[in-house]
Amino acid sequence: MSTFVLVHGSWHDGSAWQAVIDRLEATGHHAFAPTIAGHGKGANKNVNHAQCTQSIVDYIVDKDLTDIVLLGHSFGGTVIAKVAEAIGNRIKRLIFFNAFILNDGESLIDNIPPHTQALFDQLARESGDRTMMLPFEIWREAFINDADFELARSSYAQLSPEPYQPGLDKLDLKQFYSLSIPKSYLYCTDDTALPQGEWGWHPKMSSRLGLFRFVQMSGSHEVMFSNPVGLAEKIIVAGRD
Amino acid sequence: MSTFVLVHGSWHDGSAWQAVIDRLEATGHHAFAPTIAGHGKGANKNVNHAQCTQSIVDYIVDKDLTDIVLLGHSFGGTVIAKVAEAIGNRIKRLIFFNAFILNDGESLIDNIPPHTQALFDQLARESGDRTMMLPFEIWREAFINDADFELARSSYAQLSPEPYQPGLDKLDLKQFYSLSIPKSYLYCTDDTALPQGEWGWHPKMSSRLGLFRFVQMSGSHEVMFSNPVGLAEKIIVAGRD
Amino acid sequence: MSTFVLVHGSWHDGSAWQAVIDRLEATGHHAFAPTIAGHGKGANKNVNHAQCTQSIVDYIVDKDLTDIVLLGHSFGGTVIAKVAEAIGNRIKRLIFFNAFILNDGESLIDNIPPHTQALFDQLARESGDRTMMLPFEIWREAFINDADFELARSSYAQLSPEPYQPGLDKLDLKQFYSLSIPKSYLYCTDDTALPQGEWGWHPKMSSRLGLFRFVQMSGSHEVMFSNPVGLAEKIIVAGRD
Repeated sequence: MSTFVLVHGSWHDGSAWQAVIDRLEATGHHAFAPTIAGHGKGANKNVNHAQCTQSIVDYIVDKDLTDIVLLGHSFGGTVIAKVAEAIGNRIKRLIFFNAFILNDGESLIDNIPPHTQALFDQLARESGDRTMMLPFEIWREAFINDADFELARSSYAQLSPEPYQPGLDKLDLKQFYSLSIPKSYLYCTDDTALPQGEWGWHPKMSSRLGLFRFVQMSGSHEVMFSNPVGLAEKIIVAGRD
Repeated sequence: MSTFVLVHGSWHDGSAWQAVIDRLEATGHHAFAPTIAGHGKGANKNVNHAQCTQSIVDYIVDKDLTDIVLLGHSFGGTVIAKVAEAIGNRIKRLIFFNAFILNDGESLIDNIPPHTQALFDQLARESGDRTMMLPFEIWREAFINDADFELARSSYAQLSPEPYQPGLDKLDLKQFYSLSIPKSYLYCTDDTALPQGEWGWHPKMSSRLGLFRFVQMSGSHEVMFSNPVGLAEKIIVAGRD
Repeated sequence: MSTFVLVHGSWHDGSAWQAVIDRLEATGHHAFAPTIAGHGKGANKNVNHAQCTQSIVDYIVDKDLTDIVLLGHSFGGTVIAKVAEAIGNRIKRLIFFNAFILNDGESLIDNIPPHTQALFDQLARESGDRTMMLPFEIWREAFINDADFELARSSYAQLSPEPYQPGLDKLDLKQFYSLSIPKSYLYCTDDTALPQGEWGWHPKMSSRLGLFRFVQMSGSHEVMFSNPVGLAEKIIVAGRD
């Protein structure tokens, strides 16, 4: 049985994983879902990427979790890469789940299409506090395309504005790319949060891992809401020895 | 419950949708399948693209259908884009189902590989009436690859020669690209009617839509014959709010 | 009912197909799985590509098999292309199953990424007998990613070192590309034995066939071990009229 630590993406907090955790624990695993610094409702959103990373490192160290399978979703991929640099000795395997994998020296924003960059920039400028909130129409059509309208609405209500700075920070990832921790890429094939093709998750991001285990499932960027049981099963496959 | 209008592709007529309509109606929806001008057995094949579009506009207006989900398959995608320009106020959502989405000023022929262009040109020249009939071998291997031989034969018997002119007509689509009607792209992953990759349906065609809902299913270009029940279910997912 | 001849890939021998053969025969088909010259435990590994081809030709002629569906997996694709040149009159259809399809004049090594070329070259040099053995870590992560650890181990124990020369030999395939034998490409969508994208099996290799029947299933490069029943069903679909 494994110990999973699930790191959410933009606009989410740890509560997004509740149904997945329930399933993982029902099958005998341990699972934890910390909230990244600057994320979640009511949080102080004035954070940078280093603070995001540190909050996850602190969570794992405070709980003294070892031999963990560390999963990052979407933006969370940029966080677990840096967490692995800091406390790689506690990590059995990394799972990148429709996640950003940055080249050394890049930011998340460097890895999204120009029209999305422009949208995020505008949202951050208009927010007054350098956050951006995803418009519902984009959430419904491009993020949770596999849900019905009610689930699209109820899951949207769980989101909160995303701090802009962590996506702008350029990351030094030289150490990450020298780590020998085994890695998996879990890919939902109906995900259009990034447009498929030139800017897509796979194989663009996944191929940066070098040797990795590839696991696919159907579903959107938000299967933790639309298919948490199916997702839990694929997380187990991606995380096993 | 929704009102679906299903617009067929080349070589087909409205009867191709019968099993899909049966399923949609069995689940409480309304569904209609007009035959495009110049299509179907015994029709006058001397039509251009504008006449194809007008015939579908007339059908919808004559029946006074409103709040419809308008779906176009293959060549039918070029038709529903122009229908949406004409009577967008009657349309709740557009579904492009393994369909051509032309850039402004392009023709369908501009969007198929050179060797297929050459084949269609030859077929039209040899026909005597500027139509082209798809050879059975191509139908069986590249269009309905998921069917057994008997279904490949019986479905082929429902086809009729396709007028060449509508595929040559360059379409003004400036208005289409300014419409705010929600759009979905429904993609069958085993479709090789267009070769996958550089010339494929997805993401080449789909990405032209800007924001759209992406829905996938397994199956060939001709799942209305090989899996009509599965197709109907995905049409409902692609068409819902 | 069909007669299948299944030609294995690198590191394998005919015994890899046993569970697939059992299933094909249980559904009323005949199935054979010769071992390519220079392959299998204890074999003399000093062979070139022509000897590999000749061994399969001899097997089919000796057994006087006719009207066969000839399938090649991975490296086996390069073999069945040359077998088809030699005894095309005995072949009803070719199935390329996550298989190499070389352009005229190319070798297998020409069709793998530079870092894999370098690895194979190093393994062959260090072997002492110009063979290469796939490291277990690569087998487990990139070849049989859909198996649990026990199956990864037990299937690895069935492998044996692969002769290097057949992968270096440049093949004259002019005759192959003039054959009118029907062809199918069967593609497992989770296969990362070749990295997906620029160097991937599909559509890079498949598109070289011209007109072909495309059949997909989920699973890794090694579904003959991880899902032999599902593979047998797809082989039947790929091989039928």
